[in-house]
Amino acid sequence: MLELKTPQLLSDDELLAHVERALTQTIAARSLAAKLKEATHYALLGGGKRVRPLLCLHCCAAASGNMDNAMPAAVAIEMIHAFSLVHDDLPALDNDDLRRGRATTHVAFGEALAILAGDALLSIAMEQALSSKIGAAHIAHELATSTTEMISGQVLDTLGGFPTNFNAAQQLELIHRQKTGALIRAACRMGAFAAGATADTLDRFTRWGETMGLMFQVVDDILDETQSSEHLGKSAGKDAVQGKMTYPKIHGISWSRDHVKELLAQSEQLLKPLGPAAQPLRTMAQTLATRTK
Amino acid sequence: MLELKTPQLLSDDELLAHVERALTQTIAARSLAAKLKEATHYALLGGGKRVRPLLCLHCCAAASGNMDNAMPAAVAIEMIHAFSLVHDDLPALDNDDLRRGRATTHVAFGEALAILAGDALLSIAMEQALSSKIGAAHIAHELATSTTEMISGQVLDTLGGFPTNFNAAQQLELIHRQKTGALIRAACRMGAFAAGATADTLDRFTRWGETMGLMFQVVDDILDETQSSEHLGKSAGKDAVQGKMTYPKIHGISWSRDHVKELLAQSEQLLKPLGPAAQPLRTMAQTLATRTK
Repeated sequence: MLELKTPQLLSDDELLAHVERALTQTIAARSLAAKLKEATHYALLGGGKRVRPLLCLHCCAAASGNMDNAMPAAVAIEMIHAFSLVHDDLPALDNDDLRRGRATTHVAFGEALAILAGDALLSIAMEQALSSKIGAAHIAHELATSTTEMISGQVLDTLGGFPTNFNAAQQLELIHRQKTGALIRAACRMGAFAAGATADTLDRFTRWGETMGLMFQVVDDILDETQSSEHLGKSAGKDAVQGKMTYPKIHGISWSRDHVKELLAQSEQLLKPLGPAAQPLRTMAQTLATRTK
Repeated sequence: MLELKTPQLLSDDELLAHVERALTQTIAARSLAAKLKEATHYALLGGGKRVRPLLCLHCCAAASGNMDNAMPAAVAIEMIHAFSLVHDDLPALDNDDLRRGRATTHVAFGEALAILAGDALLSIAMEQALSSKIGAAHIAHELATSTTEMISGQVLDTLGGFPTNFNAAQQLELIHRQKTGALIRAACRMGAFAAGATADTLDRFTRWGETMGLMFQVVDDILDETQSSEHLGKSAGKDAVQGKMTYPKIHGISWSRDHVKELLAQSEQLLKPLGPAAQPLRTMAQTLATRTK
């Protein structure tokens, strides 16, 4: 694994460079069929904000852990995210040609290889989580359960099948809690596990992760409605075209923007007792609330 | 988990009934979107010989373990096998409509749900492996690495891309060692891990598992050439139609049949030192060598 000698002193850009190297090495180090290696590399190393790894690493540090110990978990959660994008983009699902400003994996490599590359990203992510030095069993279990929950959310989003008494707002919340929220919460919890955090700290990071997950999705929905495809690097306005539920559609843009502010205030409440150690988490919350892509 | 009070005294039919119940419970116990639960149940509970769970349970017992402790691993490896079939059957891959005498998952539930159900079977399998009481970390790691290897084998089988110096026989061996062999070897190793086996015993079961994996595939290739689709419950003769390499095609039917006998003799050599405790493994080897579907 990488050596982060004084990781707490790294800038986010330097930390991101470490994450990119760790992702690259994870694929490069494996004995895989040549085409599979190429496709998984493409799917994983094509840019992306790396929100989940950064959350994982910063949560580990904020829980007094050594960020180095959270790197396998950080890589693993990003691989799960990448797997989910590759499969969600497939013609049978969202049928997206564009992702992060370039061809989606099935457009670049064909459907067969995209399906198998997604599968491999999932299983290699599990290998990676299990290689954690501290809390491997907890981290791997968290990764597997949150992945199952995310897939369940994708089924609801793509095919419906909600409990009959759910109204539109409840359906939307359930989709997003599972589809986006599960992995973001897991990223935070895995960071805490890698720090050997107490139950109290774990609980705080769980709630903070849930707040971040919800905020991430509300902002995503706002951006889909207000930004161009070119700016986002993916197909904007698709939610509306596909008749998908979004926060602006159900609650209005103004309510959605206010809700982001409320969630940011909740985040601050949760981080307060952690003092200066949580400064990188405050910065991340702020960045996620105000991002424009 | 199930209680197998005197599992060593169970007949294979009784043991199979336990496996079926454990598989059913694994899906039933989970909080999943309704459609996802239905599709994963369909993919997992549609018959099948349950070769991998039986190998896992019998190896555990032959290594002086309590079969009960191997049940999570046995369930997990069958879920990985089921996931691989669901994805392999997809139109973009083998495009198969028939499996075990009924519609494949994508024919019954549509492509989108089949892709996601396969994904969920993989992640739930990992959860399941991690719930093992003895050797969970080893078992989960074995499951993840063998799954990655199996996917890599599927890429070679579907899309090629072999090392340039490989002749046809070497290509065939590499495909099968990865595509079929990895999971069968893993089933045996996971049984040994669940028994807390010594390194020597683990090594013996590893080699026995490799022998069984190869034998399983040679027999499969012979059956594909010599039996009807109706008898097999899946599309026979497809290998020839698709121009796929098989043992009979490369080495001839007679060589292939002799090779099965050699592998059976190798199996006996490996099991000899284990004495009567390995009787169920001898019976399984015999059954796998002489099966007609």
